[in-house]
Formats: sequence, C-alpha cells, structure tokens
Amino acid sequence: MPQDLSTLVGVNGAEATDSGHRSEEILGLARHAFVEKGFDGASMQDLAKAAGMSAGNFYRYFPSKAALVEALIARDLLEVEQTFRAIATSDDPLAALKATLRERVMENCQDEDPLWAEILAVAARKPDIAALLAGFEIGIVQRIVSVLGLVSQLPEEEAFRRFETHARVIVLIVRGSACGHGPCPAADSDLNELILKTIDRLIDDVLAGKDH
Amino acid sequence: MPQDLSTLVGVNGAEATDSGHRSEEILGLARHAFVEKGFDGASMQDLAKAAGMSAGNFYRYFPSKAALVEALIARDLLEVEQTFRAIATSDDPLAALKATLRERVMENCQDEDPLWAEILAVAARKPDIAALLAGFEIGIVQRIVSVLGLVSQLPEEEAFRRFETHARVIVLIVRGSACGHGPCPAADSDLNELILKTIDRLIDDVLAGKDH
Repeated sequence: MPQDLSTLVGVNGAEATDSGHRSEEILGLARHAFVEKGFDGASMQDLAKAAGMSAGNFYRYFPSKAALVEALIARDLLEVEQTFRAIATSDDPLAALKATLRERVMENCQDEDPLWAEILAVAARKPDIAALLAGFEIGIVQRIVSVLGLVSQLPEEEAFRRFETHARVIVLIVRGSACGHGPCPAADSDLNELILKTIDRLIDDVLAGKDH
Repeated sequence: MPQDLSTLVGVNGAEATDSGHRSEEILGLARHAFVEKGFDGASMQDLAKAAGMSAGNFYRYFPSKAALVEALIARDLLEVEQTFRAIATSDDPLAALKATLRERVMENCQDEDPLWAEILAVAARKPDIAALLAGFEIGIVQRIVSVLGLVSQLPEEEAFRRFETHARVIVLIVRGSACGHGPCPAADSDLNELILKTIDRLIDDVLAGKDH
C-alpha cells in the first residue's frame, strides 16, 4: 500500500494494513447479502455467511450493520478522493472534471446501484446513516467547488460562496441519472446527452459569472 | 365519488366504492409500519397491526406486500392525473405546469419521502416493483409531454418526439430534489431557485425549438 493511501484510510504499519485489506474483502462479500435481502432482511448471520465467516469472527470486523454501511461509504469516499486528486493535478482540470461527470452519467445502471438504493432507504429511517450519507455528498460538492476554484483562480472561501449551489445541483443531476435512485432508465443516448449538456451549461455559466 | 374518478380507479357501484375507501384507509395506516420497519423488516402481521386489523382480514384487502406497494403507486398516479387535468384545463397551461413543478421542488422533505425511498430500494431488488415504478414515471413524463404539445399545438406523436427527452430530464431533476432520493437537502432557497431556473430553461428552450 503506497504511503499516501495508507494515510488516507488512517492505518499504519503492516498489521493494520492487512486488517484493512481483510475488511475490504469482507465488505465485498457481505454486500451481496445486503443487495439480495435488504438492510432489514439481512441478519448479521446472513452477512457473516455471505463473507464465509462465523458470526463471532464477523463481529470483530463489523460490530453492526451500521458499521458495515459506514465502511461502504468510506470506501466510496476514498475512490472519490483519488478521482479528484487526478482531476486537480491534470493539465486541464476543467476538461477532466467534465470528463469525470460524463463518465458517471454514462455508467448508470451499475452493479452497486441496488446497494445504494438500500442505503438511501435506510438513511430515510436512521439519522446516523443519513448523517454519513450527507457527509459523503458534501464531500463531493466541496471537491467540485475546489476544481472550479482552481480553474477560476479564486481563494477557497470565495469559490465556495460562488460555486456551492451550482455544485449541489450538478451532484443532484448526476445522482438522479443513476439507477438506484429511480427506475433504471433505458440506455438512451439522447437522455444522457441532454443531462450532460445541462450539467456543462451550469458549469460554463457559473464560471462566466452568470447565475450568481 | 364522481363518475370520472370511479372510472379512473376502476371501481363500479357502491359496494366497490366503499371497499375502495376502506382500502385507502388501510393504506394510510399500514404505510407507517413500512416507514418504521422497512419493506423487509415489516411483516404482514406488522402491517395488519398498524392498520388495526387481524392478519386474516388484512390479507383480504392486500394479499401481499407487493400488492400494498402497487396500491400506494396507484394512489399517487391518481393524484398526478388530477393535477395534470387541472393544468390542461387552466387558462395558461404552461404557467400552470411551471407552478406545479415549482410546488414539487419547494415541498421537498415530505412526510412520504421515507416511504418512497423504501419503495425505490425494493424496486432495485424486485423486478415487478421496478416495473410498477417505471410505469409511474413514464406516466408523469407523458403528461408533461402532453402539456407541452398542447402549448405548442403539435399533434401527439410529434410532441412526444420533440419533448420526451426534456420531460425525462425534468422529472429526473424534480425527483432528485426530493428528500427520499438522497440526503435531505437543507431548506435552501438558492438551491431551489437554481433547480427551478434549470427546469424553466429546459422548458423554454425546447418550446423555442432549441436543443433538439
């Protein structure tokens, strides 16, 4: 594990890293039980079984279903961080941001969508999960704002004031284009193109100083 | 019950109407158990209890949880039909459509949102529920297309060809602004105004013959 990655996930030394890898592996296996049976339908026993472990051993890694959801969100946030680090260090951060958003819109109907739909439903009932999810979404909004701030060479505070609302609408549209948040849209290039055009226009207008 | 309404819900005569009213009442009570325990967490026993009935009697009205979800969706579609009938017969259908969309965006964080989040999660796992939900969404898209066709005086087929994609993006944005489909957004007038501006621009552009 490279140095920066281990810092990001907050582990140090070989033992913790091994444990991190093992958690990741368990997460990948247990999520099938979540998707198949739902958050409430899947017992800790089911989750342990899906991971090929005894319930006692499983509890050592994830003491609750909420802990498992937290780990799933943390894993996704790590991916988001890596993506946005690549955008910020690219030659053309604006083009890289637009390309990333395009990729997200185009790749709707993911393997993970039923899992996210499940997490959203749980969030509507459980405030602790809702808070985790809200933090995840704010994290994405902040990273979009940072890229727009970098492109327009504005200080952080000014960038946030100017770009936050637009970034939130962009996240809302990208989220809406994913499958888990509604009936899976038919693979429709006209629809995707209009979604992307709407997003690009939001970005171009706010960078040009319109709409604020 | 007025003639047209009884036709819409597919019931005839006093007995069926009484049964319809009773179903509606049970639906209103049982949904609390869904919201509280989730689709998988709530047993038919829980649902019957929430409706103050014996399980046997409850089964007579709703033989399965899927039947209950179907009834919830049918109830909402009935509301949608009434709303769009009012839009079509108003003096200014375009203004009425925009006002309705504004209302929907502004009223985010509804009492019903956790229920919809739950239904979406179930849809990701159960194809029959997904099909019901897709039908509901197509119904809304078709009604928006009809209003735009009425405003631009185009025949139905031509209206569908020209407006369908825009109507789908509008539905996606309105859906995304609701609470049940993501972390409940803070009551934020800047956010709502930008969402509405984005929707209005989609409508105005496509009516002006741009974007197609």
